[in-house]
Order: sequence, then structure tokens, then C-alpha cells
Amino acid sequence: MRVLVPDLPEFRELRVEGVELGFFSRDEAPQGSAEGVVLWFASPELRRELLGRPGLRWVLTLTAGIDHVAGRLPQGVTLYNAHRLHDRAVAVHTAAGMLAAARGLHRFRDAQHEGRWQPTMDLGTLDGRQVVIWGYGHIGKILEELLTPLGAHVTGIRSRTPEAERNAALAGADWVVLLLPSTPETKGIVSADVLARLGPGAWISNQGRGNLIDTDALLAALNSGHLGGAVLDVTDPEPLPEGHPLWAQENVIITPHIASTTSDLVARGAEYTRAFLEEMAAGREPEGRVEAGQTY
Amino acid sequence: MRVLVPDLPEFRELRVEGVELGFFSRDEAPQGSAEGVVLWFASPELRRELLGRPGLRWVLTLTAGIDHVAGRLPQGVTLYNAHRLHDRAVAVHTAAGMLAAARGLHRFRDAQHEGRWQPTMDLGTLDGRQVVIWGYGHIGKILEELLTPLGAHVTGIRSRTPEAERNAALAGADWVVLLLPSTPETKGIVSADVLARLGPGAWISNQGRGNLIDTDALLAALNSGHLGGAVLDVTDPEPLPEGHPLWAQENVIITPHIASTTSDLVARGAEYTRAFLEEMAAGREPEGRVEAGQTY
Repeated sequence: MRVLVPDLPEFRELRVEGVELGFFSRDEAPQGSAEGVVLWFASPELRRELLGRPGLRWVLTLTAGIDHVAGRLPQGVTLYNAHRLHDRAVAVHTAAGMLAAARGLHRFRDAQHEGRWQPTMDLGTLDGRQVVIWGYGHIGKILEELLTPLGAHVTGIRSRTPEAERNAALAGADWVVLLLPSTPETKGIVSADVLARLGPGAWISNQGRGNLIDTDALLAALNSGHLGGAVLDVTDPEPLPEGHPLWAQENVIITPHIASTTSDLVARGAEYTRAFLEEMAAGREPEGRVEAGQTY
Repeated sequence: MRVLVPDLPEFRELRVEGVELGFFSRDEAPQGSAEGVVLWFASPELRRELLGRPGLRWVLTLTAGIDHVAGRLPQGVTLYNAHRLHDRAVAVHTAAGMLAAARGLHRFRDAQHEGRWQPTMDLGTLDGRQVVIWGYGHIGKILEELLTPLGAHVTGIRSRTPEAERNAALAGADWVVLLLPSTPETKGIVSADVLARLGPGAWISNQGRGNLIDTDALLAALNSGHLGGAVLDVTDPEPLPEGHPLWAQENVIITPHIASTTSDLVARGAEYTRAFLEEMAAGREPEGRVEAGQTY
């Protein structure tokens, strides 16, 4: 079985019986047919080329989302994802951003830049806070386990949650955490209307996809003072260009789409791939199969 | 029973049968004898004056530490503290700082100032991290409950921990969290020697008192690259003056002694005082009595 994997030192060290590995860089891959592709760190152009390889039977994407692959797979090619690789780091990153906001760490960092020792009283914790997790899947469940000892009350809602129930949850939320995937249905789901439903002073955390939020509506809700603030690991546009008004918002905490990044991520990805290939080579079904029609 | 309390709206509303309240501002207190003083938000000068009031039998300090009162009480005056009022917020603040450091939120805030979208790989979580809590009391136990679901392994050490055991714990630590009180024994306890015992890249969090750390030694350990970074809610000197070299350290996260501050702290302090006074007025012993010789 020939499999193409990213050309990274941790993948170069992989040895799996019955598997012949080929290595692709960001823009280039070796010629020839391949039964499987482990997709990671490939340019959009190379990705398209890889998905069209003759003989392709399966694709394992090591990214968290699958929107860059779903719908682009040839008939009969099975897609696997690796959410286990990312879920915990994303949940930890989300909790970190919420705690940082509650404790005012972003404002104290601003004061540090100016060498100002300036205590304030408007600080909080997550005790008793109502947190709505919108997109309550694997990550959401881990996040709930992290937030509960911090005293937060978590409500999970999903795309299929009835609108009245969803609106009631949003109206009572101190925090709304977006973990939804990007699909045609979720694009712009946090609209001006949805933002107006939140109570005054509520915060939003977007750890899903940038286009879940209508950025202009977000800026308007921040500027009016209705929204307390936002913690954004993803933005629209992304990357956020220099000079974009979101950068200058005091109560917007921006990280550059690194929620799932850890210094050992590549090593963990290689290890995940090794276990996956061993299952494949032994004729067993690996975990993470994406069912037809599943968009995340 | 006449009791002097801070002149704050939340305390003005207190009504306790058998208790006559007098109200002091930061610098001034009403004349006359008092059986009890609830000490909070008083200047050092007024504090000294209050502790010398004729008829004084007890003092309740609503601060976390007691170093500003201990040793200055007249013979026969009982001291109570209110650690319950502060412990949880301090533990949450400590966890927030550790997570922010692990996720690089301080560096991303710096990048935000410059409008730079700049992903990096050198990010982590607290999974598998060895955390030494130095000063393992009420706050330390709460902190351990918050850090355990985040995957950290906590070791508590105390002033009385044998030196060999302490040094072994420090040598293996990814994080050292200082929650020690300020006493003659703890002053400068984190010396150049102790810093050298830490493994390369370890971080320190000081949520105790500024003078626990030898600031010059800390700066040297940061500048040499031996220390990964520091999260400081207390400093020496404190407040940290403009232009102090700690301000400009990238991997030093400074908050202005607000670890226990929450927007409802005064309301919680007033409520704590009401319950305390009810116990006193009923002739029962309130909780929080500081035993003779106890320095924290």
C-alpha cells in the first residue's frame, strides 16, 4: 500500500509494515498512484492534485475541520478525520481566553506596554456564569469538563436546536462559545439579529470558523457597548489584514488560528498516523470515518 | 457593641441587632471607643490609629494577608482574617495566568498592538506539566482542583518541607506557583540559588507577596534565558514604578495586585462582615481566628 504523507522529520521516521511512504512538501508531491493520502500542510493547489491521484481509496485529514476536503472527494474515496488530535487543545485554548478576559489580562497587558500599575475593580471569574456552547460536539464536551470546576453553568446548543430554545439560551448567556463548523447553513449565523438577542455585556468566543460571525455586525455591537467583548481565534477576513478595525478593539482578544496548535502537534500527528496506518495495513477500520453527507 | 467598618455603600446598608456601626474612610475615622474594627481600605496611618482604639477587643481584617496587622496588635486583642473571601478568586486568577502563558496570549496581544497575524508553533497546554505550589494552604488546594482537570500534576510544598525534598520538587517543575505569605523567613526565598535549581524553561507565578522573589535575580534568570517566564501579581518594589525593567520583559505577565479582586468583592466583604457580626453579637466564636504566633 502506497501512502503519501507530509514531508516532516516526524513522518520521515514512520515505519509501518506493508506500507510504502511517499513524502509531499507544501507545493510538491512525488509522482505515481497512491492508495491513501494523509493530508496536512499542503497548499490548496497541491491538495486538489492529491485528491485526484489514480488509485486513491482513502484520505486522512489531520486538520480539525473538513470543509477544505468535503465535497471535493472523488466518488468512492473514504474520508477520515482526526478530531482527537485537536479537540483537547482547542478546549484548553477556549478556556484560557475566557479566563484571560474575565481577569482582564488583555487590559493589563496594554497597561504593561505603557508601564502603568493600574488596579481596577471590574474583574470577574467564571463562577455562576452562563456559558452557551454553540456547536456542542467533541470539543464542547471537553470544554464543559474544564469550565464546570471553574463554576460556569454550561448549556450546549446545536444546529438542530429549535430556534425558540436557542434564542432563550442566547438571551441568558454571559458567554457564547462558537464551535460550529463552516457549512452553508452556519455562514453568518451570528448576525446583527443574533447579537441583539444577547444580554448587555455578554462576550463571544469564536473558535470555530471566521465566517460564522458577520464581522460588521460584531464591530457595531462592540462599538455600541452592547457586547462586552470577543475572543477570536478565527476571523473574517482571515488572516486579519493590517489596519483592520478589529485589531484596535480593547475588548477583542485575537489569536491567529492557533487554538489547536501545540509545540508537539506534529509529533502527535505522526503518532496518530502511525496507529492509523497500522489499522489500515491490518485490514481493520480505523476510527474517524466521515459518513457521506456529514459536513463536519 | 460599637464596631468601626469601612465607609462604603455596601457597609452602610448593614443592620445587625446589638451592633452600632461607625464608618471610617481611607484616612479618617469617627472618635470614641470601639470593641471591634473591620479593617479594609484604610491608610497605614489610620490603620495604626484604629488598632490603638480604647476598648478594642477584636479586629477582623478583610484582606487576604495579615502581615500588615500581625505584630502590631495590642495585647489581648483577637485577630480574625477572611481568607474565604479571597481564596477562590486568587486560585482562578493564578490558573488564568498559567493558561494565558501556555497559550501565548501575552505575545499575541503584543502582535495585536502591531496588527500582526503571526501564528507560532511554540504553544502548549498544562497537560502533563509538573506544577509545584509553594505555600500549599487554602488557595493551593483550590488551585489544585482547577489545575487537575487541565492535566497538570501538582506537588505542594510548604515552609516546613525538608530542603532536599523541596529542591527535588523544584528541579522537576515546569511551573512554580508562589502562594507563601510574607514573613521574615520567606523574604527573598526565591533567590538566585533557587532559580538556578529550576530546569531550563520553567515558569514562575507569584501570587503571594512581591518580596518572596529577589527581583534582580529574577531579571538575571530571565535575561539569561534560563527561566521561561513569570506571571506576577505582586512585585518588589510594589507598585512597580514606570521604567522598571520588568515591564519590558516579553515573557513577564504583570497584573497590579488584583488576584483576589472581583467586581462583587465589596458586596461579598459586606456580606461576610454581616455574618461575622451576627456571630459576635450572639456570643459565638466566628471563624477565621488567627492563633498567636501564626503569621498567615
